[in-house]
Amino acid sequence: MSYQPPVREHLFLLKDVLEIEKLANLPGFADAPIDVVEQILEESAKFCAEVLAPLNRVGDKHGCVWNPDGSVTTPPGFKEAFRQFADAGWPSLSARPEYGGQGLPAVVALACEEMSSSANMAFSMYAGLTHGAYTAILAGGSDEQKNLYLPKLATAEWGGTMNLTEPQCGTDLGMIRTKAVPNGDGTYKISGEKIWISSGEHDLTPNIVHLVLARIEGAPAGTRGISLFVVPKFIPDADGKPGQRNSVKCTGLEEKMGIHANATCFISHEEATGWLIGEENRGLNLMFVMMNEERLGVGMQGLAQGEAAYQAAAQFARERLQGRSLTGPKNPDGPADPIIVHPDVRRMLMDSRAVLEGARAFMFWTALFGDLAHRDPDAAVRQKAEDYMALLTPVLKAFLTERGFGVTSAAMQVHGGSGFTEHFPASQYLRDARIAMIYEGTNGVQALDLVGRKLPANGGRGVMTFLGELDGFVAANGADAALTPFVEGLAAAKAQLQDATQWLMQNGFANPDNAGAASLDYLRLFGLTGLAYMWALMAKAANARIAAGDADPFYANKLAVGRYFLERVLPDAGACLAKLKAGAAAVMALPAEAF
Amino acid sequence: MSYQPPVREHLFLLKDVLEIEKLANLPGFADAPIDVVEQILEESAKFCAEVLAPLNRVGDKHGCVWNPDGSVTTPPGFKEAFRQFADAGWPSLSARPEYGGQGLPAVVALACEEMSSSANMAFSMYAGLTHGAYTAILAGGSDEQKNLYLPKLATAEWGGTMNLTEPQCGTDLGMIRTKAVPNGDGTYKISGEKIWISSGEHDLTPNIVHLVLARIEGAPAGTRGISLFVVPKFIPDADGKPGQRNSVKCTGLEEKMGIHANATCFISHEEATGWLIGEENRGLNLMFVMMNEERLGVGMQGLAQGEAAYQAAAQFARERLQGRSLTGPKNPDGPADPIIVHPDVRRMLMDSRAVLEGARAFMFWTALFGDLAHRDPDAAVRQKAEDYMALLTPVLKAFLTERGFGVTSAAMQVHGGSGFTEHFPASQYLRDARIAMIYEGTNGVQALDLVGRKLPANGGRGVMTFLGELDGFVAANGADAALTPFVEGLAAAKAQLQDATQWLMQNGFANPDNAGAASLDYLRLFGLTGLAYMWALMAKAANARIAAGDADPFYANKLAVGRYFLERVLPDAGACLAKLKAGAAAVMALPAEAF
Repeated sequence: MSYQPPVREHLFLLKDVLEIEKLANLPGFADAPIDVVEQILEESAKFCAEVLAPLNRVGDKHGCVWNPDGSVTTPPGFKEAFRQFADAGWPSLSARPEYGGQGLPAVVALACEEMSSSANMAFSMYAGLTHGAYTAILAGGSDEQKNLYLPKLATAEWGGTMNLTEPQCGTDLGMIRTKAVPNGDGTYKISGEKIWISSGEHDLTPNIVHLVLARIEGAPAGTRGISLFVVPKFIPDADGKPGQRNSVKCTGLEEKMGIHANATCFISHEEATGWLIGEENRGLNLMFVMMNEERLGVGMQGLAQGEAAYQAAAQFARERLQGRSLTGPKNPDGPADPIIVHPDVRRMLMDSRAVLEGARAFMFWTALFGDLAHRDPDAAVRQKAEDYMALLTPVLKAFLTERGFGVTSAAMQVHGGSGFTEHFPASQYLRDARIAMIYEGTNGVQALDLVGRKLPANGGRGVMTFLGELDGFVAANGADAALTPFVEGLAAAKAQLQDATQWLMQNGFANPDNAGAASLDYLRLFGLTGLAYMWALMAKAANARIAAGDADPFYANKLAVGRYFLERVLPDAGACLAKLKAGAAAVMALPAEAF
Repeated sequence: MSYQPPVREHLFLLKDVLEIEKLANLPGFADAPIDVVEQILEESAKFCAEVLAPLNRVGDKHGCVWNPDGSVTTPPGFKEAFRQFADAGWPSLSARPEYGGQGLPAVVALACEEMSSSANMAFSMYAGLTHGAYTAILAGGSDEQKNLYLPKLATAEWGGTMNLTEPQCGTDLGMIRTKAVPNGDGTYKISGEKIWISSGEHDLTPNIVHLVLARIEGAPAGTRGISLFVVPKFIPDADGKPGQRNSVKCTGLEEKMGIHANATCFISHEEATGWLIGEENRGLNLMFVMMNEERLGVGMQGLAQGEAAYQAAAQFARERLQGRSLTGPKNPDGPADPIIVHPDVRRMLMDSRAVLEGARAFMFWTALFGDLAHRDPDAAVRQKAEDYMALLTPVLKAFLTERGFGVTSAAMQVHGGSGFTEHFPASQYLRDARIAMIYEGTNGVQALDLVGRKLPANGGRGVMTFLGELDGFVAANGADAALTPFVEGLAAAKAQLQDATQWLMQNGFANPDNAGAASLDYLRLFGLTGLAYMWALMAKAANARIAAGDADPFYANKLAVGRYFLERVLPDAGACLAKLKAGAAAVMALPAEAF
């Protein structure tokens, strides 16, 4: 049995925890009553399990092949699967109806994205980046650009990419050298070398739309002189069809530890024709619209690879016979017990579940604010939703990828020696998942974004609202005896997060190195606190179902995993707090030459 | 600059912390005055840096090749390097002079093993397993067997292997099916299929000596019916030279995530001729002599891969220019600052050093007890040394491999996107290091060995002696103001370890699942406490050098890294304690079918 999409978990979150049925007054949600959502998820699950998952190992083995003419051949089966994927409408779930999309809530699309990412991360990146390009053009393109590109990108008829990195600059985009020279007709000649361009060239779509950061001749130095351009591989003709070949070329593929089936390209622009998107020198702002969406998607990849790896490990643990239970044989007629009887194997599986189920709730709960930010008529709701999206994006990106990678490593450990071989899927999940901690801004960059930008934004309004919401939950549910350990766990975590936040305010401004040295442990503490809140929300929802007479063991199991989270995962919060409050002195004590 | 062996660190440990010069009264140590040791380490460092390290990437790329005739070709350069390695005497440093060895202390050989493992883990495994086979035959072989095999194995003229695993049994060796049928002349026909045999077939030596676990016809079921046999690839002739080809054959190689240059073999015994080593049905005891030595070696691999990865990360961080320091430009004339100015990058490098330097001290300190167990004339010293070796072997194996893997992952993170590509060494270190958490008994098996066997052995004598030693250090050094944070940190960690040990005694016997569920967090707490002791010992030694007027910044830097350990690594101990004391209930709450 290979990967099985966790639709039951998705429906629990959407129905019982987030109660999206109560949002039927909002645009998009009206079109998604829960039975329709359920149908969508079941169809998506079927497609991901039957079409995408079987191609995952094929993709890892074959990888993409660069051809001397600059074309790239994706692994066998990818092209056909991508056509099916696009024809079925999966890329366009949440895109706007006026551009060929289906207008559904982002939180529903997200559930489908989790499945496709679990089933085949490298495959799903082609569509993920395409949707990111859609978002950036939607945010900053002219009407003409929107009408030309958005319908193609919304449906993944064409592919999309993000051309940022150059050999001398990754995180530090102010160092970009790619240049743009006006042609005098509104177009520009784009010249420069880009590296690490995911999905940068492939055979899945008849055209690829590159969004390229470049510096217009004479622009100010640094990040204030960077503009965003659209550089289509084939310049659309008058009918909007792929026309003349543009001088943008893939000059090779990067060899990397994982995601072999996603083409990571060296892209050379040789006086390629580009069109400015938005204003001159304001390219980074637009690119960050795309980047922020991708960051949430990358957090989802951490969760998704963890989920797929956990499933493989659980299956192995139920089937592999080795040793006997410490409390007496559980499979007395067999030569040994399945290894799932061993407490340390259980510990790894329960660790994984406690993290994954909490992480999924955190991701869905946050994504719903993304919908509210766009769709809610109440300006106060929209503001809170925007604050939360800004605040939580770096937390989700870094915390879920770090913990998700940990889950893939635990899954390998459950497999024992088999896990290290390439005959079982554990190695690929681990190798694929590892990139998510790095790209779209390393986790350290996310942590710095959190403490340096997101916390102080609007006088700390976002974090204050969040901490207040946790207090509100604790106050409202403190008397609920069935919820006591969850409320107590949340209250303790919230107190630690508040303590850390105050420490940062008092010490981070005086010495920025204190903020930098604290940043990742602060982010981890934030993530753990977020998960404690999610587990409290899930426990409350599960209790409600049980109280209503629902005998599905799903709910009792949910509470059991939640208890595990409180007892066995949340204690890390105290260590994060102790570490970050130690300050920067020991971190920065050595001279650089001592390393 | 590639890997540079940390000889300065080794000498600090041997001279200032372990003071091996004071042991000159013991056999072996008399032949190793510190200037001789220094020469040996410098020579080893030169060989590892110049010969073995350059072959590491070659080995990863090429891997080993299985040929249809059952032979295996190692990567280009390996054969020549192995000959140089053996001719220079590196494999025989600590072997006994009567068998062609040099009789040096194991702790000195260990320093050289760290270097070769850092330089080229896959290469060093060929010699490592050979030394393991030497140890098992030394422990249990007849005089004839010793005289025949030990000189060949001590010098790595021939290779050695350990044939344990079969498809249906890894950890649970009682399920072994390979059978041994007496030929009536003292030899046996060995038949069965073995898998995952490291160094099982190769072209580095003219003969390979397999140590094979098999069941003699009619032997009792389970672990009490397993015997150990020597099955040479070529049966030695009357002159002790490789003679008739034995019917033991490599039928293929395992495809795996890392250590590509070490041949992981499927080995088929088809009525191969084998000779019993030691007594019938007592094979596991002898195999565990070999296994325990290998477990320490695997702990060393965790440290060694971490060290090599840390060095690559530190070099990258000093050279890669990206962004500016939070406290103002540090490289104002350059386009950006080196990323080592960023506190979160420092945090990763300091985390790595605090773990690696502590781990190396713990490994060396323990290995010295291995020497004392064999060489000290005082029976009480020998008993304590044996107790410590037994107690600490699982701790070193699991803690150092888990933390070492963490260091390789941090090193990849420091590299950013470059780290995920195969153009930088981070990926190979991570992929190679990961196996060390699995083989020679998974880390979970180590944890169970610790709490189930090693703790209760001899009424807890080993752990009581260890805890008493920590108390003794705290009492003796409590008044030393220069050592206060180290003494306080150690005292706090020791109190937590003692608390956990008592909890285990009270709760583990009543419900063995409590012991199993606590085991890995207990082992981690043990490892952290061990490192706290090591840092206290190192700080004391560094203070002594500083007080004696030594102005080498090495000592001040050592104290700075130690402070980092106390502030930023040791807080994990509290989380381990909280988790393990939560007991087994939440770990075992779900029915197996709920996974």
